[in-house]
Amino acid sequence: MRGWEKYVRKVEPYVPGEQPKGNRLIKLNTNENPYPPSPKVMAALQTMEADALRKYPDPASGGLKEALARYYGLETNQVFVGVGSDDVLGMAFLTFFNADKPILFPDVTYSFYPVWAGLFRIPYVCPPLDAGFGLHKEDYFRENGGIIFPNPNAPTGIALALEEIEEIVRRNKDVVVIVDEAYIDFGGQSALALAKRYENLLVVQTFSKSRSMAGVRIGYAMGSPALIEALENVRYSYNSYTMNLPSQILGVEAVRDQAYFAESVGKIVTTREETKGWLREMGFSFPDSQANFIFASHEKVDAAKLFNALKQEEIYVRYFKQPRLENFLRITIGTDEEMNQLREFLERYTLSDAVRPRPAGT
Amino acid sequence: MRGWEKYVRKVEPYVPGEQPKGNRLIKLNTNENPYPPSPKVMAALQTMEADALRKYPDPASGGLKEALARYYGLETNQVFVGVGSDDVLGMAFLTFFNADKPILFPDVTYSFYPVWAGLFRIPYVCPPLDAGFGLHKEDYFRENGGIIFPNPNAPTGIALALEEIEEIVRRNKDVVVIVDEAYIDFGGQSALALAKRYENLLVVQTFSKSRSMAGVRIGYAMGSPALIEALENVRYSYNSYTMNLPSQILGVEAVRDQAYFAESVGKIVTTREETKGWLREMGFSFPDSQANFIFASHEKVDAAKLFNALKQEEIYVRYFKQPRLENFLRITIGTDEEMNQLREFLERYTLSDAVRPRPAGT
Repeated sequence: MRGWEKYVRKVEPYVPGEQPKGNRLIKLNTNENPYPPSPKVMAALQTMEADALRKYPDPASGGLKEALARYYGLETNQVFVGVGSDDVLGMAFLTFFNADKPILFPDVTYSFYPVWAGLFRIPYVCPPLDAGFGLHKEDYFRENGGIIFPNPNAPTGIALALEEIEEIVRRNKDVVVIVDEAYIDFGGQSALALAKRYENLLVVQTFSKSRSMAGVRIGYAMGSPALIEALENVRYSYNSYTMNLPSQILGVEAVRDQAYFAESVGKIVTTREETKGWLREMGFSFPDSQANFIFASHEKVDAAKLFNALKQEEIYVRYFKQPRLENFLRITIGTDEEMNQLREFLERYTLSDAVRPRPAGT
Repeated sequence: MRGWEKYVRKVEPYVPGEQPKGNRLIKLNTNENPYPPSPKVMAALQTMEADALRKYPDPASGGLKEALARYYGLETNQVFVGVGSDDVLGMAFLTFFNADKPILFPDVTYSFYPVWAGLFRIPYVCPPLDAGFGLHKEDYFRENGGIIFPNPNAPTGIALALEEIEEIVRRNKDVVVIVDEAYIDFGGQSALALAKRYENLLVVQTFSKSRSMAGVRIGYAMGSPALIEALENVRYSYNSYTMNLPSQILGVEAVRDQAYFAESVGKIVTTREETKGWLREMGFSFPDSQANFIFASHEKVDAAKLFNALKQEEIYVRYFKQPRLENFLRITIGTDEEMNQLREFLERYTLSDAVRPRPAGT
């Protein structure tokens, strides 16, 4: 080992889903939106002035915060923005989870949580979800240094009732509770209503899913001015100019175009419910997802094999090789056309020899 | 104090320079480039496809790294990119400075260094520069947990000779040495040549100054594959998709347009040398800056008063209210026209009653 390596931070990095390239492939593996961003985002992109790029952007991202605050009925000092919700969540871990007591999050959840905890040396405990991937609020009524969970949960898509969330927040007023709502626009009830009453609740959302802007990297947190100020102080201690000018300009346009947003989300929800129908008919089972993906398993189909067979066809879904999840595939909801291609393939596959081998000797 | 506040990370945030708005103002306070980015950056902006924004960007920023690697004669595994050099430096502090021994940086330097050290609880010691703001390499020959300094230094603009840098790196092979070259394109010798020979040397640069792209937020680090891999592991433990699609696309165009880059930097260097001439004639003194700013003082002029007088005229420069620096102003090199307006004002001001009060009783 070289001398300097002794002082290198040891980490176990998060592995993002594949970003394969190609025009014909069907990409249902990273929960992107199959529809483009609002046409107003496009228009703003084309009228951006290059000269403006030479100057530092507004370090406070004032315009973007204002657009979000207006949309959600908040003040701008109740909104924080970052480079995707990963940046926002990472900074929230660094800001709020500094107790010696372990933070709590479910055993089956967004796999970045243990990575941030590892990076910042935060102890954690993972109360297991039940056999049907249900979260029990009582598991969060113990002493802890903070709580985080997604709602709807990932990769299951299961939404937790608002009353249950409220009870978790109410019983944990001495720590910060983060509800990660990356998928909330597709179903479930946002905890934002609670954030107005509970100072210790932080709600995190993103432009990457419902607003079709994963490529722009915008995430945001909403909560009490005290929480937001703490986050801002840490951000100004790390990078004052986090949001580049394109993000700030395009983000505002996306938030303002509410009609386009509603239409695009509506289409995905419709497609999701239709997909549930035909998946069920084919013998797949899955939690009742409220997100833009379905976490499906089939008692006669080996998920890892199906994952590879789909890949051969240039249909990409997500497979998590980890305990409890190894027989599921997470399938992002695409366009109707993409889902039809998936359906045709799955129909052939589930009826094929690969799935139902003939009895030996025949 | 609320319960949760006990677990909030205590920090002393960096305070960035003002970003005043207005068309008539002359902004010489944050070392931005007075010239727009390459016309090719503009063209790329206008032909960007909105549909591409719906997908996650390449988490590895492959195209951007390749363009930089080609430009500097490196392999892509010797290049790291981040959201401005602040992001790169912040991540480097987190990655490499994990010893119990203090890291070393000069007492007069980029004021973000102590902020990152504070954020990540890194002990540090600041060897003082000499009376003329000179850095003595011998101050860095003591036991330490890592070293960082800018070259040219900020806010003085003084460049350190390559031999001195090499001796610092060579005598500190057991720790990582970071040379922060935000201003190197305007003068001084890059330590990149050394990075090919010393595995413990990381060289950090930015698109914010010489490439006129502060608004896009691109910084980069160059060094041995081992250093870059360590940085990448920490980045993938924090945010896998840091560089948004616009940054990746515009960054490539900026690196490729070498002719525009050379012309723009050349103009600034010429203006800087002219500015030195007339500032000296007016009685200002300053270190011989190799950067895109001049750190000037005048024995008959109170810097804080001049700062405010300039602000009244909508001419913004930077004033650091801190020991050793309180009688200096850091003046960014603008266009010739901007510098002429500054010159006219300073001529009037240095000859005015405010500067040379009449003897009492006359």
